[in-house]
Formats: sequence, C-alpha cells, structure tokens
Amino acid sequence: MTGKEIKEMQKKYVLQSWSKQGALNPIPVERAEGIYYYDFDGNRYTDMASQLVNLNLGYGNEDIALAIKEQVDKYCYIGPSIASEPRAKLAKMIIDLLPESFGKVFFTNAGADANENAIKIARMFTGRKKVFSRYRSYHGSSFGAGNLTGEPRRYPLEPGIPGFVKFFDPYIYREPIEFESEEAATGYYLAKLREQIIYEGPDNVAAIVMETITGSNGVIIPPKGYLPGVRKICDEFGIVMICDEVMAGWCRTGKMFAFENFDVVPDIVTFAKGVTCGYVQLGGVAISKEIAAYFDDHVLSCGLTYSGHPLACAAGVACVNYYTKAGIPEHVVEVGAVLAEQLDSFKESHPCVGDVRHIGLFSCVELVKDKKTKEPLVSYGRDPEGIMGKVIGLLKERKFMTYSHENMVFICPPLIITEEQLKEELMKLDEVLSIVDETF
Amino acid sequence: MTGKEIKEMQKKYVLQSWSKQGALNPIPVERAEGIYYYDFDGNRYTDMASQLVNLNLGYGNEDIALAIKEQVDKYCYIGPSIASEPRAKLAKMIIDLLPESFGKVFFTNAGADANENAIKIARMFTGRKKVFSRYRSYHGSSFGAGNLTGEPRRYPLEPGIPGFVKFFDPYIYREPIEFESEEAATGYYLAKLREQIIYEGPDNVAAIVMETITGSNGVIIPPKGYLPGVRKICDEFGIVMICDEVMAGWCRTGKMFAFENFDVVPDIVTFAKGVTCGYVQLGGVAISKEIAAYFDDHVLSCGLTYSGHPLACAAGVACVNYYTKAGIPEHVVEVGAVLAEQLDSFKESHPCVGDVRHIGLFSCVELVKDKKTKEPLVSYGRDPEGIMGKVIGLLKERKFMTYSHENMVFICPPLIITEEQLKEELMKLDEVLSIVDETF
Ligand SMILES: Cc1ncc(COP(=O)(O)O)c(C=O)c1O
Ligand SMILES: Cc1ncc(COP(=O)(O)O)c(C=O)c1O
Repeated sequence: MTGKEIKEMQKKYVLQSWSKQGALNPIPVERAEGIYYYDFDGNRYTDMASQLVNLNLGYGNEDIALAIKEQVDKYCYIGPSIASEPRAKLAKMIIDLLPESFGKVFFTNAGADANENAIKIARMFTGRKKVFSRYRSYHGSSFGAGNLTGEPRRYPLEPGIPGFVKFFDPYIYREPIEFESEEAATGYYLAKLREQIIYEGPDNVAAIVMETITGSNGVIIPPKGYLPGVRKICDEFGIVMICDEVMAGWCRTGKMFAFENFDVVPDIVTFAKGVTCGYVQLGGVAISKEIAAYFDDHVLSCGLTYSGHPLACAAGVACVNYYTKAGIPEHVVEVGAVLAEQLDSFKESHPCVGDVRHIGLFSCVELVKDKKTKEPLVSYGRDPEGIMGKVIGLLKERKFMTYSHENMVFICPPLIITEEQLKEELMKLDEVLSIVDETF
Repeated sequence: MTGKEIKEMQKKYVLQSWSKQGALNPIPVERAEGIYYYDFDGNRYTDMASQLVNLNLGYGNEDIALAIKEQVDKYCYIGPSIASEPRAKLAKMIIDLLPESFGKVFFTNAGADANENAIKIARMFTGRKKVFSRYRSYHGSSFGAGNLTGEPRRYPLEPGIPGFVKFFDPYIYREPIEFESEEAATGYYLAKLREQIIYEGPDNVAAIVMETITGSNGVIIPPKGYLPGVRKICDEFGIVMICDEVMAGWCRTGKMFAFENFDVVPDIVTFAKGVTCGYVQLGGVAISKEIAAYFDDHVLSCGLTYSGHPLACAAGVACVNYYTKAGIPEHVVEVGAVLAEQLDSFKESHPCVGDVRHIGLFSCVELVKDKKTKEPLVSYGRDPEGIMGKVIGLLKERKFMTYSHENMVFICPPLIITEEQLKEELMKLDEVLSIVDETF
C-alpha cells in the first residue's frame, strides 16, 4: 500500500486516542531506525518523545527483534497457569534488579492494568478500601487507573469510584506560597498529606499511589526528602506505598528505576513502557516479599488472559538485558547532563520559558506568557485557540516530533540518542522558543 | 533451562491469576503444536479449552508466525497517532466482516480494556451514565470491566462504581419457574429487563452489555428471540447495545461473530482472544457508523499507549485471514455437530450430568448431585472439599486439559480439532463422568 492509502484507510476505520476524529492527519510510517522514523516520501522525523515515552531503546533494536523471532518459533502464547521460560526468567530478572525486599511479579499488558492490579493487591493485603493518589497525575484510562488519575482525562469516568481520594503533588513552581528552601517545601507537603490521611481515617487507607516522578503532567521531580517522608507516613499507618514507574522507570532518569534517585524503597512498583519498549505490549506489578507471602494462602483475585505473555516476556528479557549490556544508565547520565545544561540556558534566554524540569532524559519546558507572574501560555484545561498545537506544529515543521500537555512541551528522546543528535535537535527547539517568545 | 528449573523459577517469582500461590504446580511447557502441548519429559497434553478459550487456531499457526516476523523486520511499535499499515488493514477487515452499520474500530490490548472503552464510548455518545450488565457474566477484572462482571470475581472491586446495574441472564435450566416454551421464557426475560430499565430510569441508561453467549459462567445460549427483543428495548429507549464477543467471537460458534446466530445487530461489539489467538495480545471495540460520526467533532476520551499495536495488528490480519482461508466456520459447524451429539448422549447416560450446552465448539457440562432436583455438584461460590478440582484432576490424569467454573466443565478445543481427535478426547470425558457418577 502507498502512504496515502494507509493514511486514508486508518482515518476511515481506526479511532484515535484523545482526539476529535474529524481533524486527524496521521503521518504514515514506512520504516524506523534508531531515533528516527520515515514516511513514504522519505521524510525523516526525529522522535523526541520516544513515542509516548516508552520507546526507550528506539526503533530496530536487534536483540529484542531476535528474541521475539526465536520465541515465535517455540510458541507465542500459553496460559498464565503454565510454566513458561521467558515469563519465569523475566520475573526473576526484575526482582533481582529491585531492592532485596521485593519478591514477586504479576504481569499485565500495559500500564493501566498494572495500576489496576496494584490497588487490588493493596486492598486485599490490607483489608482496607481507600486509595490516595495525586491531582497532577496520569495512571491510565481504564476505570480503576483513570480514577487514580487526577487530571482531566479522569472526568469521563465520573462519578468516581468510592474511596479514591486525591491530594496535591509537590509542584513548587506553581505553589501559591513561597518556600524558604526545598526542605521547607517537603515539610509542608508531608504535613498536608499526613493531615489529609488523618481526616480520611488512616485505618481506611490501603495505598498511596504516586508516579515516582510525575510524568505527563509535567515532569514534577519530588523535592529532597519527600519520598522518604511519604514512606514514613505509610509505615506509621500501615499503608502500602505504590510507585508508578510506568513512564519514569527503565533508565529514563539514568537509574534502572526512578525511585533509586530518592533514597526510598516502595512496597509495590508498577511498570510497563520501557520494560519491552513497546516491541510487544507488557506491564506488571512487582510486590514486596511481605505482600507476596500473604497470597501464599489467600487467593490472588487478579487475572487476565494474557498475564505473563511469553512473547512479551521474551521481548522483556532481551530489552532489560540490553539496558545493562549497553550501559544505558551511564549513557543517560552523560547525555542528560547536556540536556540539563541546554534547557537551563533556555530558561535564562527565553521569556516564554517559565520553568524547565529535567532528570536524565526525562524533561519538559513549561511555557508562560509572563515569566514574573508565571501566567501559563494556556490556562488549565483550556486552549481554545489551539496555541499549544501551534507550538508543537512549529517543532513538527522542523521534524522535531513530540507532544504537549497543558502549557508544557516534553523532551524525552530515546535513551540511545547521542550527544551530537541531541544538540542538533535542541537547536530546533531553541529556534521555536524564539518564535514563541515573539508570537504569543 | 530444564523443565524443573522453569517451574521452580516461575513458582518463586511469578504471581498466578485467581490462585493461592502456595499450592501451585504449573506444568512447564517445552513446545506446542496444533491442539497439543508438551512438557520437558515428552508428555503430550490435549488443550481442550484452547487455553482460556482464546487459542482458536491452536499452536504453531505458520501464517500468524510469519506475519509477526515480517512485521518485526519493519517496526514492532509506533504510537496510535501515526498511520500504520497493519493497524489500518485490520480495522478495515473487521469492519468488512461486520454488518453494514459498523464504521470504526478502537483497538485495545485485551478483553477487559475493550469493555472498559466500550462503556466509556456509550456514556460519551449518550450523555448518560448507567450501564446494565448481567449477574452470570465475566467481562474482565479491571475496575470497569470487573464492575460489569456479575460473578464473584467482582467482589474484590466493591463497593462498586455508581450506576452499574445488574440483571439476570436467561438461564432457563436453573430458573425457579418452569416455562411452557422457549418463546414463553424469552417473553418473561424481556419483560423483566424492560421493567427494571423503567425503574432505573430509561433516560439514565447508556448501555446494556451482554456476552452474546455467556461464556465462563456456563455457555448460556440465549433463547430464540431474546437478543432481538433486547435490541428492541434498546431502540425504544435510545440505549446502546453492546455485545461482548471476547470469548464467543471469531468462529467459536461456527459464525465469525456469535450474534450472527441470533438475527440481531448490536451497536458495539467488543472482541479480543480469537482476533489474534493470543499470539500477540489484542482487543478492540467496533462501533456503529452512527456512534463513530459523533466522535468526528467530539473528543474520544479514550487512550492507551499500545492502541493499535502494529505487531499485534499484523498477527490479527494473518489470523482473521486464516479463518476464512481455511474454512474454519464450516469446519466448526461440522465438528460441532459431533460434539453436540456426544454431549447430548452423555446427558442421557450419566446421572451426574444435569445439563449440557453447546454451539459450535463452545460447550460445557453442568454437573449435579441429583438430576431431578438439579442440585449442583458444588453449591454456588463454595467448594470446600475441592470436588471440581478433583474432576479436573481426573481429566488431567488422562491429559485432557480444561478448567471448571462453579459446577461446570468446559469443552472448547481449538477450532482446528479433527473429528477423530475430538472423539478420542470425548472418550476420556465419558470415562471421567462415569467416575463422577459413582464417586460424588
Ligand atoms: C505514569 C503512567 N502510568 C500509567 C500509564 C498508562 O499506561 P498504558 O497507556 O500502557 O495503559 C501511563 C501512560 O502514559 C503513564 O505515563
Ligand atoms: C466474555 C469475556 N469478556 C472479557 C474477558 C476479559 O478478557 P481479558 O482477560 O483479555 O482481559 C473475558 C476473559 O475471559 C471474557 O471471557
């Protein structure tokens, strides 16, 4: 088929996520390699968002490709109750990468169902019902994960599930009060959280679910001491601490898991995206030995047809091996330093850049109308003139492919990007930010 | 790795669905072919449940395997907003197989998220919130799908989501009243449903969700006129009719979709399992042109990272093509007649067989203590002595692999099973039923 035919067929027959279908204009892709993909006219696009921040190793990774093909020759699928080599192996690899306290993995298909099952597990283990999560968060779009989610993508699922409680992220840049120090901010956020738990009834709270680093809602990096403080609150009240590492995990921040940056050990880690880089869909829930032991003689009331899918797990084994073998964490730290330096300089030089936040190759630029008042380029949940679409369009004209959320633009390239490639792309961003400075 | 090592590693590191983990004893599988799989000691097992009634084409289908490998050589993954050939093609193929009124497909990873998105779509389209589904049903285990689900696997998700309403399936065999005819039963069930809708407020009801044929809860086949009657009620009140074809679809009943057996056209069809036979995970929601048109200028507030996964869609294209190319529907009708005849004869000959229900290669045997009183072999939700486990164990000793639910045993082999293979396996079932006759 030609590119045009594919595009027309997709527009005619496929519903696309989070969109009005009438206005779609999808690029038809013919092939992809490394950090680039190509349309049928030979145009090359740089993937500066790793698609949906999941393609950590970029396109065409040969180790993963080979692992998939080899597993196809054995068997693609076998049910969850049968012992399968790639499934067992990947679970062991993940547990070995996590702190000593972790015991077992429940595999799912993606991020949303990883979070769904994590809260089910926490509820069964604690015998409690309430679940805390944050306003600036995205945990998936199914009813459970979508009720954890705090941002507007939750609204279509309301009236919500009873017992899902929201608190605020440590979003210092937009806090109505000013803090003397990072420590002061941490103290404030922890005190508010503890107060809210007490008012909800600590004995009712099964879990606190957080993206270790808030992703889609703006790469909000927790201040020093915040996560250990949440850990302490969880310990005080017997609450299960769940870190959603769907986006932040798998070397995105320069560590295998993002929580390793913050001197904390959660009880449950949910993952997806980078575990296979999406080559085959996979997600999962890693749980502590203590929680795992509970299910030795209590029914784990979770299940899905494709739990521990052998083909997906085979891709996962190759992918997770590759991270270590190719020294990806170290590479992310190195290239991440270049990214940090350049973004910091954009914050200095561009009036439209209110804030930049970055860790490893996980970063975003927050656009404002006015640096002093911090008035966002578009107000929350509203962008009637489609300004952010225009900003993304300016980048797209330069083949710098990424997406925006509210007034933020994401820069989260595949982790294999070289320093040279990164610099080349950031020049385009610099150029577009200059246009934004002048236009909006 | 040896079989023993795989088994031990899986037990140590992997959480298995719907089980107490302490008691697990998973068979390690080395290879699989057709309707059989093999452990590392060369034992051959016959898969009489198509794993979880999803492996419709059995193991080692070469068309699907080749399609996966070819797609791996192009690209495994690209995001939902990019036009991708296998994604566009599969959506068109599915719409072409469905009635004229169908327009577009939203792809998911599995059955649960297909149902999650179907109800979201129905709610957005109608602007209403309530959703009807049935007690004897399984629609998945995530919060939305699990709240649709009526059987005990729903309980851990309660207190439930507001607005999820349950009604009873047309389960004539266990109805406390006796009907003069199938038509009388249909009349009764439709009148009760219509009454319940009126009491819930018809203008509040977004959708009625039904498994076209109730699967895991006992292959309950709707009586004549039932589904067209539900269709009429939906039309009367502007309610979206959603058929969950996750298990019943894709030739299982001898038709491409199960609703084709009943002279009815739903508004939305959800699917998964047989669309790829699980070779790569895939599910989806097919919606009518009318509903699709609504989303031309309204945001479709649904999304997932892996929507329309290219590798999964490539597997789907090959799989769906194979059904037609290999004449699977015709074959199912032929072999299904043999299955029907034998099961009917078991109902005659075995005191422990209260009822048998079958359509195509979708069937179950309902075990009773007493044929006259219909007292089930184990009571609902309770089997403290593990009797059903013992029955399944007797079959397993004979390498007849299947599972049970409540007092029912499922016989749902891969659709490629030959008449000879089927007869060979049913002799084992006959033997085990004789033991059950005498033992329990
Ligand atoms: C932090 C986080 N959790 C969960 C999800 C949901 O994952 P999926 O789209 O695979 O369901 C996402 C997706 O972007 C995410 O970023
Ligand atoms: C009728 C039906 N719907 C939905 C599901 C859920 O599908 P999955 O396990 O892929 O989430 C199942 C699974 O058995 C099913 O039988």
